[in-house]
Amino acid sequence: MTTFAPQIEIAIEKSRQDVAALHSELTRYGLVVWTGGNVSQRVPGAELFVIKPSGVSYDDLAPGNMILCDLDGAVIPGTPGSDRSPSSDTAAHAYVYRNMPEVGGVVHTHSTYATAWAARHEAIPCVITAMADEFGGEIPVGPFAIIGDDSIGRGIVETLAGHRSRAVLMRNHGPFTIGKDARDAVKAAVMVEDVARTVHIARQLGEPKPIAPEAVDALFDRYQNVYGQAPQGELTQED
Amino acid sequence: MTTFAPQIEIAIEKSRQDVAALHSELTRYGLVVWTGGNVSQRVPGAELFVIKPSGVSYDDLAPGNMILCDLDGAVIPGTPGSDRSPSSDTAAHAYVYRNMPEVGGVVHTHSTYATAWAARHEAIPCVITAMADEFGGEIPVGPFAIIGDDSIGRGIVETLAGHRSRAVLMRNHGPFTIGKDARDAVKAAVMVEDVARTVHIARQLGEPKPIAPEAVDALFDRYQNVYGQAPQGELTQED
Amino acid sequence: MTTFAPQIEIAIEKSRQDVAALHSELTRYGLVVWTGGNVSQRVPGAELFVIKPSGVSYDDLAPGNMILCDLDGAVIPGTPGSDRSPSSDTAAHAYVYRNMPEVGGVVHTHSTYATAWAARHEAIPCVITAMADEFGGEIPVGPFAIIGDDSIGRGIVETLAGHRSRAVLMRNHGPFTIGKDARDAVKAAVMVEDVARTVHIARQLGEPKPIAPEAVDALFDRYQNVYGQAPQGELTQED
Amino acid sequence: MTTFAPQIEIAIEKSRQDVAALHSELTRYGLVVWTGGNVSQRVPGAELFVIKPSGVSYDDLAPGNMILCDLDGAVIPGTPGSDRSPSSDTAAHAYVYRNMPEVGGVVHTHSTYATAWAARHEAIPCVITAMADEFGGEIPVGPFAIIGDDSIGRGIVETLAGHRSRAVLMRNHGPFTIGKDARDAVKAAVMVEDVARTVHIARQLGEPKPIAPEAVDALFDRYQNVYGQAPQGELTQED
Repeated sequence: MTTFAPQIEIAIEKSRQDVAALHSELTRYGLVVWTGGNVSQRVPGAELFVIKPSGVSYDDLAPGNMILCDLDGAVIPGTPGSDRSPSSDTAAHAYVYRNMPEVGGVVHTHSTYATAWAARHEAIPCVITAMADEFGGEIPVGPFAIIGDDSIGRGIVETLAGHRSRAVLMRNHGPFTIGKDARDAVKAAVMVEDVARTVHIARQLGEPKPIAPEAVDALFDRYQNVYGQAPQGELTQED
Repeated sequence: MTTFAPQIEIAIEKSRQDVAALHSELTRYGLVVWTGGNVSQRVPGAELFVIKPSGVSYDDLAPGNMILCDLDGAVIPGTPGSDRSPSSDTAAHAYVYRNMPEVGGVVHTHSTYATAWAARHEAIPCVITAMADEFGGEIPVGPFAIIGDDSIGRGIVETLAGHRSRAVLMRNHGPFTIGKDARDAVKAAVMVEDVARTVHIARQLGEPKPIAPEAVDALFDRYQNVYGQAPQGELTQED
Repeated sequence: MTTFAPQIEIAIEKSRQDVAALHSELTRYGLVVWTGGNVSQRVPGAELFVIKPSGVSYDDLAPGNMILCDLDGAVIPGTPGSDRSPSSDTAAHAYVYRNMPEVGGVVHTHSTYATAWAARHEAIPCVITAMADEFGGEIPVGPFAIIGDDSIGRGIVETLAGHRSRAVLMRNHGPFTIGKDARDAVKAAVMVEDVARTVHIARQLGEPKPIAPEAVDALFDRYQNVYGQAPQGELTQED
Repeated sequence: MTTFAPQIEIAIEKSRQDVAALHSELTRYGLVVWTGGNVSQRVPGAELFVIKPSGVSYDDLAPGNMILCDLDGAVIPGTPGSDRSPSSDTAAHAYVYRNMPEVGGVVHTHSTYATAWAARHEAIPCVITAMADEFGGEIPVGPFAIIGDDSIGRGIVETLAGHRSRAVLMRNHGPFTIGKDARDAVKAAVMVEDVARTVHIARQLGEPKPIAPEAVDALFDRYQNVYGQAPQGELTQED
């Protein structure tokens, strides 16, 4: 059995609990069906992350069957859950953690409206204030990439590096979101579907009116600043 | 610790219970995601109102973490919940209470269909009887306003003062609703999304037929009169 | 306190239980919001029916607060629930029971898709087999009628008398359904929204293909016959 | 009372449990209303299958009221549940089991979006990677067939024999899905509605971009191979 220094073991255990629990937000908001979708979180202070196993029902997810991986996506043998395969998107998550050190959580879903924009290769325009607050502008489209090597991970990093948005719509595939931790990335996954749906529905009956770019900047800057003043709480500008 | 006269303390406690419980109607009807959306209620007999804290999960809302504010939106120190920040929309709620003395409750959401109309700057036309009953005509659009000063509150008051509708669609933002108390404003928030969705769907396959203005008046007047005869119960004309 | 012969009291009590319980099907399938919508049932062997009270939350409906009325829609004094007002649609239900002796249950909702067709004054065309089975053809539109006198009831009866459909879309208002008892009418309310939604969505991307009239007849006749052979069970042709 | 060899009795009992429990996935994902929809499973090692009874509420389904049939669709007398009628689609299920020996489970629903494509007689094009993974290309349309003889079963077999897709959209009717067992067929029923909805919504605002045929093949082949390496777990390529 593989063990780590006590403080790392504590951080691993907390990440297992966080990642297992946060999957219930994906089902609560209808972002996933069957066993699709996945959440991961970097273990603070270690070159490790925790991710969902493959093919386990959402009803059966628990801290003990989350899977511990190194930043190359290899399962750490002799740890709880290591007898199962990790999510088939593990390589993409690992690539993001290796290349974006500021990222502490990654989420992937095939949520309906975000995937619909992705199927048309269309970015979501920023026409509602909640989207300006949360994403600071449009939600961009990433490249088409085949599963199984680094190409999805590369597409996420190339699209989001230096971008305000924490969400990318991978072509013909679906959204990936990043955050400072898993909870923040899950929030982005919930919000990207919410704005994808609202802007879709707005456009069904005519073209939504744009928000002036300086108003988008003001809304996003305010969010960043308020957020900076409240490091403990999870503050959104609209609650 | 700040205290008030006993009858005011009782009214505050009741408002805390009402406001905490009524948020569950927002999640029941799918009007909010994550920690978005907020309900407030004026404390009868006092220059005070109770509002949701910022950034607390809907699962964790309770009477004891609702926040007591004066009509300038300042948190009353030394009262339960006063260690947290109130909703980021507190200034807008306070402005409404200061300027519309008949209003006892205010609700804000980003519910999908109402926000879609708001993104196109389009009022919802009155083409179903439930809408004539509840809102007495079209649901109007309010101005674009940046969060953080009085401009949202001013936009709500300017649009709704003297209007039959208890709901306004703030441009590119979402609906705000008012009522005689928080429950009445929550009902308006539920109904505005319901009619926004139904009229949207009706229009997807052709133009809905209008209701004659005199029929709209008759439906609304009947509601007002029936309502007036049943001050205790919460009577809708269609249940 | 008003009492009836023992066998009528038993039938009243069973109707109270049926009507109270069946409202939960309206919320289960999302056909109603707030306190909207209503179910009633004729008391077998008596000139009476049981209906929902006005303005009571769906969470609080119980056999003891259902309201007993005569076939003119007058509340029977001195019976459980008679201190409250019955549904504001009571006159329409009563008119149907007076004029359609074969009807044992009536339901009204403002369910989204059915109401959208009603707002355009459009009958739902019969393009799916489930609709042929259940309704035997198109679902017709009824007249525009103001609440408060017999005009809604007259519109229902004039449209459905001699028609295969157990559902009518009242113009700019919403669906009313009838059945041999309340459960049958609730089933029709569930099915009318289901087919209204499916046919709406089919038409969004092109015109659905018609079913040949003789196939519609064959499907409906089979349902009627199979149904006739199973008087105990509630048999649908597609389960 | 009819009995079988002990190992067959064990297999029958397991199938009863599987089939009863799997119906809850149909309600969880909103694929069915009222008593519509049905799941069946072949009993391994016997010329038998287990199917849902007709007209029983989803709340009341239990292993003991599932119905045991032979491969002609005849109820086995003297077994639990044999006093009721099996699903009215039993003949179609039986035809599939007789003619597709590799099939161990069959599911039928009238799920909204899949039925909408069926009403237009349109195959669902393969424009999202989840669909390439799961179905290997487009989801085909089957013939129009009247209930009550072998014509539905024949239509399913003629359309799906030799096809990658485990789902067929029967014209003006709805989807039927097949799988190696009931769970696999239920998964296909969940996924066909999910992709039917996503592709529908994508097309509402423009034409989705196609996936190159060789990429569709690569995604499907990978799924087949990964699947082959994990015979125990239920592995999807995207979880």
